[in-house]
Parts: sequence; structure tokens; C-alpha cells
Amino acid sequence: MAHLLHLDSSIAGDNSVSRAVAREYVASWQEKHPAGVVTHRDLAAAPPAHLDWTAVSAGMTPEDQRTPEQAEAVKARESYLAEVAAADEVVITAPMYNWSLPTPLKAWIDQLVVPGRTIADPDNPGLLHGKKVTVVTTQGGSYAAGAPKEGWDHVSPYLAHVLEALGADNLEFVNVEMTLSVVNPALAAFTDVFHTSRAAATDRVKARVHV
Amino acid sequence: MAHLLHLDSSIAGDNSVSRAVAREYVASWQEKHPAGVVTHRDLAAAPPAHLDWTAVSAGMTPEDQRTPEQAEAVKARESYLAEVAAADEVVITAPMYNWSLPTPLKAWIDQLVVPGRTIADPDNPGLLHGKKVTVVTTQGGSYAAGAPKEGWDHVSPYLAHVLEALGADNLEFVNVEMTLSVVNPALAAFTDVFHTSRAAATDRVKARVHV
Repeated sequence: MAHLLHLDSSIAGDNSVSRAVAREYVASWQEKHPAGVVTHRDLAAAPPAHLDWTAVSAGMTPEDQRTPEQAEAVKARESYLAEVAAADEVVITAPMYNWSLPTPLKAWIDQLVVPGRTIADPDNPGLLHGKKVTVVTTQGGSYAAGAPKEGWDHVSPYLAHVLEALGADNLEFVNVEMTLSVVNPALAAFTDVFHTSRAAATDRVKARVHV
Repeated sequence: MAHLLHLDSSIAGDNSVSRAVAREYVASWQEKHPAGVVTHRDLAAAPPAHLDWTAVSAGMTPEDQRTPEQAEAVKARESYLAEVAAADEVVITAPMYNWSLPTPLKAWIDQLVVPGRTIADPDNPGLLHGKKVTVVTTQGGSYAAGAPKEGWDHVSPYLAHVLEALGADNLEFVNVEMTLSVVNPALAAFTDVFHTSRAAATDRVKARVHV
């Protein structure tokens, strides 16, 4: 059965652009897969644990020798991994916060990265191999070529690398820029840029679902 | 009185290379400033709260109208800001975890970024203006020019940008690469690279302190 994993990370709730675009993805996907299963995980509402030594050492400790804390860390990691493994499509929302990722999204990635197991290598296609992975990025400003802060987008280049390391071979980014232009009067001159990229995002997620 | 803020973020405790290099910085600094004050904050031991809507909305709410949760978020943010404001030097350790920052370090940065207040703009030199800021980065592998994963360092380019945005005008990075070569037999061929960069880091932090 078709299975979509839908991850949110915005803190902005109903005002979130990334969440709205992802909901459009999900709605299109449900039209295409009326009997499909959607698993929604809200990383902002329930952030994964920060990577810590308990979790790292647990992975190097035989199961029957783990402390209760190590066993708990392994259990949590396995639940994140199983959720991804069960999905054939993944949609991830990644708003830019202070030019980088929301910390709960990075904490989720830290849960997924297990060298020798989830990272692609010559003996292993990696956790995300063969899955359709779509990342919805949003930016309060613009980081396009020629913009004053061109090169300050530290979200999509990072996610492209780490998702590729996890084996993603069918990966697409859908970006909405200038989201702050409709809430910050100082950026009002850029509302057209926002509306154009927002409308394009709707078209692109629909096209992406139906590829 | 001279005041150094010393931030750690490694989860590796006594095995941490970044913590060891920072301790060398602190030791040199204390030789130079015998009466100086060092404030040590261990972000791994006590991660700042994830950025959330409570904290963001608190900043837009007059003090006498804040909920208890908003007041708590403001109090926490003010304590991080005051700690940086009080220091004339800052040493930050930034080990690379899965090609990006430890989440508690990013959470700390999210506490510091307050547009209109801590970010440099034409009316404001920014929180870090005039402070000597040193970032100790460590990498399990190598991301040097020509390495297979050149371009996968998503720690130092990001930190350079965000610290610059916060007004840093005296910023230096000290990097140690191939830290895993001494613990992972598959990387044993690179132990010389590690030892060379580790020794260079010692020299550079001493020189940095005494500039």
C-alpha cells in the first residue's frame, strides 16, 4: 500500500507557509492514492532528542548490556528509522531559521544517520534509496542569484548533501521565498516575489506527486 | 576586567578534541589575564530551548501582557544575551555532527539572533562587534580542497555568516580535521593529518590569545 511520510518543522502553526505547501502535497497524494496511508510527524511539536553520548554509545553496546537510558535512546532511534523505512514517499518541510535549519529538523536527521546502516556506501543503497523525497523550503527573504545575501541559504545545500548521503536518488526541492514580505512592511516591495514563488510551489508539488 | 565566554557543544566529554583545544585557549587566556573572569557554558550538558512560537511571540508582546511561558522564554533569552554582552572574548567549540552543527549550538544561536537588536545593521554594530571571537571546529574526516567531500562542511561557512550577521568583526576559525582517524581503523592512514592539524590548533589558539 502506498505510504507517505509527512514531516513538519515550522513553529508558525497555521501561519506557516511550509506547512501549507506540504498540505497541498498531501492532498494531491491522497487524490492519487485514495487508499494510501499518511504518517504525519510534527517535529516542532515533539522535537527528537538532541544527539547525545547516551545515544551514540548505545549503538556501540550489545543490546543485553545497555543501560535503561541507552535502551530508550535506541528505541527512539528505531522508531524514527522504521517510520522512514515504511514510507515510499517523504515530504519534509524546512523553513529557514536564522539562515539554517530548525533545530528539531536537524535533531531528526541526527537520529537517521547511522554509518554502516543508513548511509549509502558500496554495500548499501542507503535509507532513502528508491523513495520519492520532496523538501519544501521557505525563506523569509531571498537568497537567489544576485540577492544581497546570495550564498546565505544554509538549509537546502545541507539537506541536499545529507539526504544524498542517506541514499536519496529521487530528491526535489520546492522553495518559497520572501515569506516575510506579507508580514513585514519593510519588505512590502517584494510581495509579488512571494506570491509568484508561492503559486509556483503549488504547481510544483502537484506535478511532483503526479510524476 | 577581562572576561572570556567559553562555550562547549561536544557530546564526547573527555574524549572531545574541540573541548581540549578550547581548554588550551582558556589556559593561555588565564596566563595573560590572571585576574580575568571565565564563564563556561556547556551547551551539550544543558541545551537551550528549541526556538518556538512562545519565544518568538514573546518578543512581540509587551512585558506586562506576556504569559508566564513567554516571560520564561524572554528571561532565558536575556540570560544568553547578557552572557555574551558581558564578554570581551568568546571561544566557541563547534564539532561537526553529520556535516552540520550540534543542535544545542544552533539552539544557542537562535537565542542570540534578535533582528533590530543583536543583528548588525546601519544603526547598530551588532552583539559581537568589537569582541574577539574564536571558533574551534573539528571534523571526523577532511573537507579540505580536493577531498572527496570537499564542500560538505556545513559548519564553518554557516557560523562565519551568522556570527558576521551578529556583528563579529574579529573572528577566527581554528580547525582540526580527521579526528576519527585515531579511533576508526578504516581511517588509520590519516592519523598524520590529524596530528598535524591538532598540533597546529594548539599553536594557533596560543597565538590568537596573544594577538
